[in-house]
Amino acid sequence: MNDTHATSAKNGTSVTFLGIGSMGAPMALQLVKAGFDVTVYNRSADKCAPLVAAGARMAGSAAEAVTPGGIVLTMLSNDAVLTDLMTTQGVAEKLGGGLHVSMSTIAADTARTLSTLQQGHGGQYLAAPVFGRPAAAAEGKLWICQSGAAAAKTLAQPLLAAIGQSVADFGDDPGAANLVKLCGNFMILSAVEAMSEALTLAEKSGIDRTALTSFFGQSIFSCPIYQNYGRILAARTYAPAGFALALGMKDVKLVQASAEAAGVPMPLANLLHERLLGSMAKGRGALDWTAIELTVAESAGMTPVPLQP
Amino acid sequence: MNDTHATSAKNGTSVTFLGIGSMGAPMALQLVKAGFDVTVYNRSADKCAPLVAAGARMAGSAAEAVTPGGIVLTMLSNDAVLTDLMTTQGVAEKLGGGLHVSMSTIAADTARTLSTLQQGHGGQYLAAPVFGRPAAAAEGKLWICQSGAAAAKTLAQPLLAAIGQSVADFGDDPGAANLVKLCGNFMILSAVEAMSEALTLAEKSGIDRTALTSFFGQSIFSCPIYQNYGRILAARTYAPAGFALALGMKDVKLVQASAEAAGVPMPLANLLHERLLGSMAKGRGALDWTAIELTVAESAGMTPVPLQP
Repeated sequence: MNDTHATSAKNGTSVTFLGIGSMGAPMALQLVKAGFDVTVYNRSADKCAPLVAAGARMAGSAAEAVTPGGIVLTMLSNDAVLTDLMTTQGVAEKLGGGLHVSMSTIAADTARTLSTLQQGHGGQYLAAPVFGRPAAAAEGKLWICQSGAAAAKTLAQPLLAAIGQSVADFGDDPGAANLVKLCGNFMILSAVEAMSEALTLAEKSGIDRTALTSFFGQSIFSCPIYQNYGRILAARTYAPAGFALALGMKDVKLVQASAEAAGVPMPLANLLHERLLGSMAKGRGALDWTAIELTVAESAGMTPVPLQP
Repeated sequence: MNDTHATSAKNGTSVTFLGIGSMGAPMALQLVKAGFDVTVYNRSADKCAPLVAAGARMAGSAAEAVTPGGIVLTMLSNDAVLTDLMTTQGVAEKLGGGLHVSMSTIAADTARTLSTLQQGHGGQYLAAPVFGRPAAAAEGKLWICQSGAAAAKTLAQPLLAAIGQSVADFGDDPGAANLVKLCGNFMILSAVEAMSEALTLAEKSGIDRTALTSFFGQSIFSCPIYQNYGRILAARTYAPAGFALALGMKDVKLVQASAEAAGVPMPLANLLHERLLGSMAKGRGALDWTAIELTVAESAGMTPVPLQP
């Protein structure tokens, strides 16, 4: 670890951002806006164009984007893609004694493995998954949870401050923050299932969908998840996806794997898996994950009409 | 209906409050404080003492507490107790052309039946169930949802304004507001189940319970349910009960009956029923309904230590 980074100034520090998707793009843009010298790489190069226009540099490969001993932030779609990037594509080796700030939603065990990998190259690893959808990312309003070594947290602090509105700490275990992230996504989808069943019961009983979600969003459930998802569910605006149903399936499977490893029966997680499986079977993997509501309504003999992707 | 009530002044109007329990007592007290002339009755007379000290009058029976053509508010523990009060104990008949403001959590069909009953005596019925625990009731901060005839809403408005911080309207059907109430309790207990499974997974994985619930309560779930219940779950303070687990079982059974009547499969409601059933089997009916968490933790081989009632 290069100690000159320990006092990371906002201006001039070179950082690499890998994974310019619906979340990565606005997150990287916040770093550019905050004055960091950002180099980006994405498998689909066209996704990088707006960032280049804003002042970022685009590399021709993942490894080429990396500065030895520097800082790499990653936001990839799943464990396999991230692991391939860090190993087969040589990012961990080239980064060497630098810092990997790992922000994807991945399994706790994958985080621990990648942490050990970077330490083997003389570097550090910080788990820093995020909560919030693309609109929140575009405003630097994500909620970040972190875990890992203290030095890594100090080094990453100004970067995370540019990306998120708060950073909650969960200790040294590099897997801890990812487990918190999985718990959060599990709780969110549980709320969506509960809202979907309640909305179906209410609608078949003659109660207005919008009146119902609006009431709860202004009273006992006056928080972002119930307000934002309540609006989506009431109007059935499942496309474009803020978070794709297929990605939700990935996360629920990670929850189930974590639960099995820890020895924790989670019947609600199993119910959500069944719900997502039925939704995928109906070809809804690219819709927003709130689209599980369609399957709930159909199970009650209704014929809901969603917006199509 | 006595039209002189249509302009209900806060001072001097005589009202009757039946059902002085953990919720009814603070609700009735708000009416006394707002200047209404309140007469109360409860099966256990000792519950009324603090209200009498505050200026309420206590009647010797439910019917004796009622003024013909006046206003009666009821807050009873279940459908059977309320129905017995209105029919066998003669409240509906004595109330006659007056208004019954029915605030208990009961089935939509029971509400419709009681509405028809009061109309048969020349009077009116307003469904006005509430959200919030005793502490919220003591501050006049309940959230009320109402449904019924427009004239009944006008007449009850100053009373509901003294009891709640807001009143959401769900139309003419006297059963609608009760269905909304049941949907809300279903969504709350769903959130408790989700938090319980997540907390068990987190704790067995070495993550601090309070850190987890605190993070979610300050970010994506920054609303009363997750904040208040998160604190209870993290510390396992299941006694004294704010809302008894046995009453939660009553509500989930009402949800299931409504779902069957409407033709809506609700697998999450069924899961909650199983969870409550197992908790009741372990003798936890008098604990707060968040105590379902103990059963979740035990299912994972843990030996949680709660406060005892």
